[in-house]
Parts: sequence; structure tokens; C-alpha cells
Amino acid sequence: MNYPIKKKKIKKNDHYANLGQTLESDLELTNQYYLNNNIAVIHKKPTPIQVVDVSYPSRNKARITKAFYRRPSTTDFNGIYKGKYIDFDAKETKSKTSMPFANIHSHQMNHLIDVKKHGGIAFLIVAWKAYDEYYLITIEDLKPLWESFLNGGRKSIPYTFFQEKGHMITFSYIPRLDYLKVVDKLI
Amino acid sequence: MNYPIKKKKIKKNDHYANLGQTLESDLELTNQYYLNNNIAVIHKKPTPIQVVDVSYPSRNKARITKAFYRRPSTTDFNGIYKGKYIDFDAKETKSKTSMPFANIHSHQMNHLIDVKKHGGIAFLIVAWKAYDEYYLITIEDLKPLWESFLNGGRKSIPYTFFQEKGHMITFSYIPRLDYLKVVDKLI
Repeated sequence: MNYPIKKKKIKKNDHYANLGQTLESDLELTNQYYLNNNIAVIHKKPTPIQVVDVSYPSRNKARITKAFYRRPSTTDFNGIYKGKYIDFDAKETKSKTSMPFANIHSHQMNHLIDVKKHGGIAFLIVAWKAYDEYYLITIEDLKPLWESFLNGGRKSIPYTFFQEKGHMITFSYIPRLDYLKVVDKLI
Repeated sequence: MNYPIKKKKIKKNDHYANLGQTLESDLELTNQYYLNNNIAVIHKKPTPIQVVDVSYPSRNKARITKAFYRRPSTTDFNGIYKGKYIDFDAKETKSKTSMPFANIHSHQMNHLIDVKKHGGIAFLIVAWKAYDEYYLITIEDLKPLWESFLNGGRKSIPYTFFQEKGHMITFSYIPRLDYLKVVDKLI
């Protein structure tokens, strides 16, 4: 039987294929660019995994047969830029109006607050998928909302707050998300 | 059949049980102490694992059924202390005479060299099990030996080099390995 072969839909901007696939991979490409060009040394931390069982089918390669994802105790990204300690997490939202605090673990917020206290540069990078916009928001700016949330206040961060307090990051081909351009203004 | 039950051997210093079990866990306890006492924010990175298969026996908990350990692309520990970026790896050796460079991945050395170049504090902490001694050795001090090794020179770092150039870290109950005391002398 010959089923009709569906013609592959040609996307708008096909030369931009794979662009903006996920915020995480865009940030990893950006960090690779920073590293290759001697701009900064910033890496994503591996996902924490609790290994339960391992088998050794061959001498060289242990095979994990049972494991579970663990909750990260810090943020995903950290490193050094111009002698400064940089620490951040990346979040995506599909909402058009607000990002729920439920998306951010409290230990991540506490970690960013700690980093700031010790003289580091701490922030979130948030992708607003509905608008194709990326914002860097510092922990200093976020902290009052977070504290209000902990005390029973608003459960989410409104989009307008990002427009007012956030710093927009431009999406481009190389580097994908040049967030250090924003950091330059902060330091 | 009743097999004779072996009496558990009582260790010398039993109240120090679990002390010095592994360098890594001693460093994690030390970092926890630094964090709890507002001294520094330094964490061990999770071990990188390549996940191949995942099953979802229940809605809440994904179970990894096939995965492999990956080679880390950086060092194990990093964080911030007195506004400075700190980065290091921990190594153990049972040798009495020298630690082979084979114990150190080249990408880890390159990473530490990069960190130093960008203004961070980069080093190794090496446990000499045969002597129960712990040394911090900076990447600046290690770099000439490493470069000589890459050019066909000596394949290991002699113990005497640690005695001359290294900074001894005292092992104690709390904190286990107060390496920031050495860092204080470096900054």
C-alpha cells in the first residue's frame, strides 16, 4: 500500500532551524561561545541523579540500571566573568500574563540570595514563549516579590514586572542569548 | 548451622567513626559548615550521567532504567567566598612517593587554568592517604609541571613537591577540612 507521503512543512525562517529549541540548549551554546572566545567560564551543572543499581557488563563501562532524578540543591548555571562569580537559573513560561512562583524552588531562591550576600551576581533568565522574549531579572529586584509571596502575597510574577524591572536579552544566531551584555550594565 | 559471628573490630578513635571516610564526603561536610555559618557558598557538582531510558511507573517519579556515567567537563567543586570565585577538584592517592598525572583529566587542568585566567582562585586538594595529609596546591604552582608533562616530562607529581609548594590543610572534627583558611593566605 502506498500511503501519500506528507510533504515536510517548510518553516518560516528555516535557516534558523533548531534555534530557540529550548532555553537550556540556547544557554549552553551561548556559554560555549563565551568559553571559546575567552569571555567567561560558565557551565551548566549536571542534573542530579540518585543512582540505586549499577551493573558491570564490561570492564570499562558501568551501566546504571536503576536511578532517580533528584531535586537540585542549587541553580543550574554558574561560573566566572571578569573576575566576578556569576550564578543563575533559567525558566520558561508559556503564560502571557505571569510566571508562577511555583516554577521556582525555594532552595534556588535562597541560593541566589546567598550568592548575592557573598558578593556574586545572581539572577534568573526567563523565556516568555508567548512573546519570544527573554529577560534577565536580578535577585535584588526579585527578592521583595518573593518575600511578599512567602508571606501570603501574590503567587506569581506579572509580565509587566519583567517589562519594568527586567533586562531584555536579544536572541541572535551567535551567540544565542548574549546575557553577559546585560551583566556588563549591572557590574 | 551456626557459623561463628565475627566480633566487630573496634576501631581506635571510635568516636571519630566516619571521619576521613572519603575526601569527597569530608569536603561536602566542610562546605555545609561554610554554608550554615555564612562563610562561603561552595557546592559539589552532581556527577554527570547520560540518561538513555526512563520509565514512568507512577505519575510522580520517573525511573531511569538505563544510563551511563559521563566524563565531567569541569572540576567537582565551585562557588563563592569573600566575593571571589573558587574552583577546585579533589584527588586521593595511596602512593607514598608521587601522584600520577593520569589521575587528573586534561580538561580539568584546562578548566582550572581558564578559571585562573579570568581572575578566579583555582586549585587541587590532594589527600595523601599513606600520610593522612591533605594539601591544597594552586594551579599557578602546578602549571609548570603540567606543561612539562605534556611535553614528555615527568608523568607524576612528587610528594616532595607538595611539601615544598603545597599548603597543608588541617583535618579536624568541625569543619573537617578547613581549606578556606589556606585560601585566606592566597587572596
